[in-house]
Amino acid sequence: MIVVLGRDATPDQIRNVEAELRAMGYSIHPIYGVEKTVIGAVGAPDRDKEQDADRLRSLGCVEEVMLILRPYKFVSRESRAASTEVDVDGVVVGAERVVVMAGPCTVEARDQVLETARAVHRAGATILRGGAFKPSTSPYGFQGLGEDGLKILAEAKEETGLRIVTEVMDPRNVELVSRYADLLQVGTRNMQNFDLLKEVGQGKKPVLLKRGMSAKLDEWLHAAEYVCVKGNPNVILCERGIRTFEAYTRNTLDLSAVPAAKELSHLPVVVDPSQGTGRWSLVGPMSKAAVAAGADGLLIEVHPHPEQAVKDGPQSLKFDRFAQLMVEVASVARAVGRCV
Amino acid sequence: MIVVLGRDATPDQIRNVEAELRAMGYSIHPIYGVEKTVIGAVGAPDRDKEQDADRLRSLGCVEEVMLILRPYKFVSRESRAASTEVDVDGVVVGAERVVVMAGPCTVEARDQVLETARAVHRAGATILRGGAFKPSTSPYGFQGLGEDGLKILAEAKEETGLRIVTEVMDPRNVELVSRYADLLQVGTRNMQNFDLLKEVGQGKKPVLLKRGMSAKLDEWLHAAEYVCVKGNPNVILCERGIRTFEAYTRNTLDLSAVPAAKELSHLPVVVDPSQGTGRWSLVGPMSKAAVAAGADGLLIEVHPHPEQAVKDGPQSLKFDRFAQLMVEVASVARAVGRCV
Amino acid sequence: MIVVLGRDATPDQIRNVEAELRAMGYSIHPIYGVEKTVIGAVGAPDRDKEQDADRLRSLGCVEEVMLILRPYKFVSRESRAASTEVDVDGVVVGAERVVVMAGPCTVEARDQVLETARAVHRAGATILRGGAFKPSTSPYGFQGLGEDGLKILAEAKEETGLRIVTEVMDPRNVELVSRYADLLQVGTRNMQNFDLLKEVGQGKKPVLLKRGMSAKLDEWLHAAEYVCVKGNPNVILCERGIRTFEAYTRNTLDLSAVPAAKELSHLPVVVDPSQGTGRWSLVGPMSKAAVAAGADGLLIEVHPHPEQAVKDGPQSLKFDRFAQLMVEVASVARAVGRCV
Amino acid sequence: MIVVLGRDATPDQIRNVEAELRAMGYSIHPIYGVEKTVIGAVGAPDRDKEQDADRLRSLGCVEEVMLILRPYKFVSRESRAASTEVDVDGVVVGAERVVVMAGPCTVEARDQVLETARAVHRAGATILRGGAFKPSTSPYGFQGLGEDGLKILAEAKEETGLRIVTEVMDPRNVELVSRYADLLQVGTRNMQNFDLLKEVGQGKKPVLLKRGMSAKLDEWLHAAEYVCVKGNPNVILCERGIRTFEAYTRNTLDLSAVPAAKELSHLPVVVDPSQGTGRWSLVGPMSKAAVAAGADGLLIEVHPHPEQAVKDGPQSLKFDRFAQLMVEVASVARAVGRCV
Repeated sequence: MIVVLGRDATPDQIRNVEAELRAMGYSIHPIYGVEKTVIGAVGAPDRDKEQDADRLRSLGCVEEVMLILRPYKFVSRESRAASTEVDVDGVVVGAERVVVMAGPCTVEARDQVLETARAVHRAGATILRGGAFKPSTSPYGFQGLGEDGLKILAEAKEETGLRIVTEVMDPRNVELVSRYADLLQVGTRNMQNFDLLKEVGQGKKPVLLKRGMSAKLDEWLHAAEYVCVKGNPNVILCERGIRTFEAYTRNTLDLSAVPAAKELSHLPVVVDPSQGTGRWSLVGPMSKAAVAAGADGLLIEVHPHPEQAVKDGPQSLKFDRFAQLMVEVASVARAVGRCV
Repeated sequence: MIVVLGRDATPDQIRNVEAELRAMGYSIHPIYGVEKTVIGAVGAPDRDKEQDADRLRSLGCVEEVMLILRPYKFVSRESRAASTEVDVDGVVVGAERVVVMAGPCTVEARDQVLETARAVHRAGATILRGGAFKPSTSPYGFQGLGEDGLKILAEAKEETGLRIVTEVMDPRNVELVSRYADLLQVGTRNMQNFDLLKEVGQGKKPVLLKRGMSAKLDEWLHAAEYVCVKGNPNVILCERGIRTFEAYTRNTLDLSAVPAAKELSHLPVVVDPSQGTGRWSLVGPMSKAAVAAGADGLLIEVHPHPEQAVKDGPQSLKFDRFAQLMVEVASVARAVGRCV
Repeated sequence: MIVVLGRDATPDQIRNVEAELRAMGYSIHPIYGVEKTVIGAVGAPDRDKEQDADRLRSLGCVEEVMLILRPYKFVSRESRAASTEVDVDGVVVGAERVVVMAGPCTVEARDQVLETARAVHRAGATILRGGAFKPSTSPYGFQGLGEDGLKILAEAKEETGLRIVTEVMDPRNVELVSRYADLLQVGTRNMQNFDLLKEVGQGKKPVLLKRGMSAKLDEWLHAAEYVCVKGNPNVILCERGIRTFEAYTRNTLDLSAVPAAKELSHLPVVVDPSQGTGRWSLVGPMSKAAVAAGADGLLIEVHPHPEQAVKDGPQSLKFDRFAQLMVEVASVARAVGRCV
Repeated sequence: MIVVLGRDATPDQIRNVEAELRAMGYSIHPIYGVEKTVIGAVGAPDRDKEQDADRLRSLGCVEEVMLILRPYKFVSRESRAASTEVDVDGVVVGAERVVVMAGPCTVEARDQVLETARAVHRAGATILRGGAFKPSTSPYGFQGLGEDGLKILAEAKEETGLRIVTEVMDPRNVELVSRYADLLQVGTRNMQNFDLLKEVGQGKKPVLLKRGMSAKLDEWLHAAEYVCVKGNPNVILCERGIRTFEAYTRNTLDLSAVPAAKELSHLPVVVDPSQGTGRWSLVGPMSKAAVAAGADGLLIEVHPHPEQAVKDGPQSLKFDRFAQLMVEVASVARAVGRCV
């Protein structure tokens, strides 16, 4: 921890800060500059550094406090150099193969899901996506089929062998959704729903953690840490676009978050270009770009008839476009030493 | 609904869109321009307009779809011209008096809370704020005292008469928190935790709905609509700063959201300058500015010893500063025809 | 300067960084922690600290470099504790009186300007605003009347005594505009047009420096420093809204920038609620809020017939609304110990 | 143009708006809905639609005005379906070959530039980048060598055959820089420096137009239109990262802007991953991603000794890393049917 004192700090105030730091258990290294005093504080491995920093910032004479160590223990690359592979009922995310998770935004009906499952399976996807519990901005929007939707997904798995990823929103439903899903999705709006994170952290199912739409990398990794610290190390990070001033796209897909998250953490990172752009015409280019940037997988919305989708039709691909995209993605994957 | 077709739309495609709109129940008003065709679609009051718009956007030939009516029924000023007053156990928010809610960020200990309660009560606050369940970015941060914290708040109410506002994060705790709180706070990270919104919507306690840190006005009002549609009309909106590129302040306090939300909705709007700025030195000016902008109330963090606070010390006021601020706020309130 | 070395830095690398720092002229204070090494570097007052920091960041073993001193010399409050007052041909900005600058967005015609000048003068404004050179997003938009517009402004000054603030966009026009203007406006799009800043810095006319629409406080103050370092200390900062995700307002008016800029700098700060909100209905509340937050002045767009304005009609006030607003603003000004 | 009237608009007001539209030369198509009236206005091809829209928005009874046609004539894909190829002294940007422009951020010295030119030429780059006029946030930062720097670039061209791209900041320097450069760079801070745009539009040298750091796609294309409308059709768009809340990267590289700009416009689009990320470790992944997303070229900062660079060392590649990257980029280019 580095504590910068204001230009006007008196000798008394400086001594006071030093005493405070010692009382917290730190060993201190003051640097008395011509204009300002800076105090380095090291040691005290068990202290909550962010809390200590906040306390010091409250002292009138302290101008700034900077932390040195990254505050997460489980998810940081510093704590574990080797990249983590997450096993989703036999499909491994984070290994050589780029894993494609495809399917409709929303589970609407049995036929729609089964038809889509067959199509994406045929094209090479290995995980089926589809929402049974839907976060809808408006209370008048479709909220999902609930358990009936989960049963349809299970039937699709039974027939095609595709694994299932689906969202859970309410901590009270984690057990229910876990009975059907192979991978639990925590959505962008719930990235800091800490009670939900704790609940999925206590389970055994792997977790797909979407980045909050205004979450910094640091906050995203903290959210992953919430899951891991409860005992579940199987977290897959998912970049899905952040909120910016640009309105042409639904969100701004931050692909630099892929290599950046992989620098900071050993967890696998996948990308959702459908949510990330909101336009099907951009899904193809951004899928290929994601793989070129090092993504371990893709989430792609596919629908038999996008114009009849209850949600997110504008960003859904038709079957033939998806099949074509899989060929193109495979080509890019090979170019970066991977496969699909 | 206004549907704009692309320049290359063929007569067949145009007829197809028109048929689609008619099938949805709209009466249509096409405008065939030289370069583009635009179709106005009116009627069909019970359709989910956003879903219909998304379906149309999925058609290749449709360039844009614009909605005309605001999609919320309960909270819009269009639906109810008179401003709503929310009764918090006898303290009315949204009337002439600007209601000041003050107290520590976090309930840490009995003495800390009682001491603060007495000080803010003496200075003129009427509602005590303080968190017993705390959303902490890091899993290693303080998570709050839980029910023990609620009991301390209840004791402070007993002694001072201050009403209690405190946060609820988990839908499973709504009943518990409602036993102690007079006003349930839904925090910025949970503004789109829809299961929580439904749960507080089924209760009777008024709800303080903080704006999500990257929520548009529209989404904030939709979140309020979630609560109202479940039967609880007592929602107070709280602007608490949005996330922008500026890092000097913790958030960017969007005071224009106060008159803007009041244009769009009849609900009362209060402001939290402590979270909004993250710096105690800015809390004073922004409190006065909020009142001048028309805010119905303020949430201010006050702590007996900010430098010992477990959280948010840098943005907390000491007792004497808070008392002084109350005098200044009262002066501004009078200047805009209100009181404190 | 604080240099944080990566966890894997070898003793050789650490010695190398220390040698580099000494060669730059710093005296060094290493702190060898258990996990990381941190080096404090002080002295070397004449070095370009940001450049040195960038050089160090390029070394593979350096994780982070943090600067301690604010890098501007003229504009910082650290360099001059007393608030600066800027004299605009006898109208002082930064003193007790809140200075109101009002007028049309664009100089369209002689009558329009004279009529507006009389109205705002009558209502109590002391400076007339109006653009003769207009930055238009589209090349097909109105670009202003140029020198003819300046002459109209001069005539309005002649008649009413109002001082003139008007924008200069091109360094080649600084001399021309200075012949007519009492205060040179540098617009938001030109806040980092460094050649323009240097040019107005070499002149004698005071400068109204609008904040760039995505400028951090730090960058804004650096831009002011560009002007001052060239010899012109008469800079007035103007907050006019920043670009965020919120689209209901044209920009997000960041009123916390008023007290924040005043903490960091001794320069006066004024606010433009017309550009800041883009909606006339919000101009009133935000004008009052700006004054309550401590603004030294206001820029308000006023037009005899907003619906006929060539630009920015939606955010312009009519004469009667402006006159009424002046009364309300005066009331708030008195409440915070100032006048209008 | 679609004009939406407020719910409370009276028949008189509606007639008034209709008359106004007719007076502007539009033919009108009113749609009288149950709750609101909407008026479609078509025709009047020569009117400034944005100005008309603003005028209408100023009428109290008008709630919203939406434009239908994209307002740029030269740069839109609607106006010209075929993709434009820009010839940079024989190197074609926008054709099959992905053009790599590499070199130091800043021209510091003859040796540095020549050495770098040889290295990037050897690795396969065809255009040399390097700044002789530098936009520096601080007035104390390095401002570039000016014409001496241009002469060094010319010498590098002479020796290696690399074409030269370099920035021009001041309209007064366009002629000077054009004598040395093959491609004139307009930087992110000057994207809306309209006098500069007009000046480069009057010249013959092709223009590399960087996206403003907070520019919407629409504004970027408008800026390109400024250049084209003056007679210079040779504009290359350059995505270089936008400003968001994320601070881990220097900017947020918006790769979706590549396919999006190509949808909206026929101009070529290149990407600057060095500025876009600010970290050399991310330049490789993002270069490959840019090519996979369809970019027509790359701008990459390369320096013989990044740790000695006066600017942007942290985002500069060393020679060997750049050579390795060229091999990897070529592999991705082939995967998407292009070459390097």
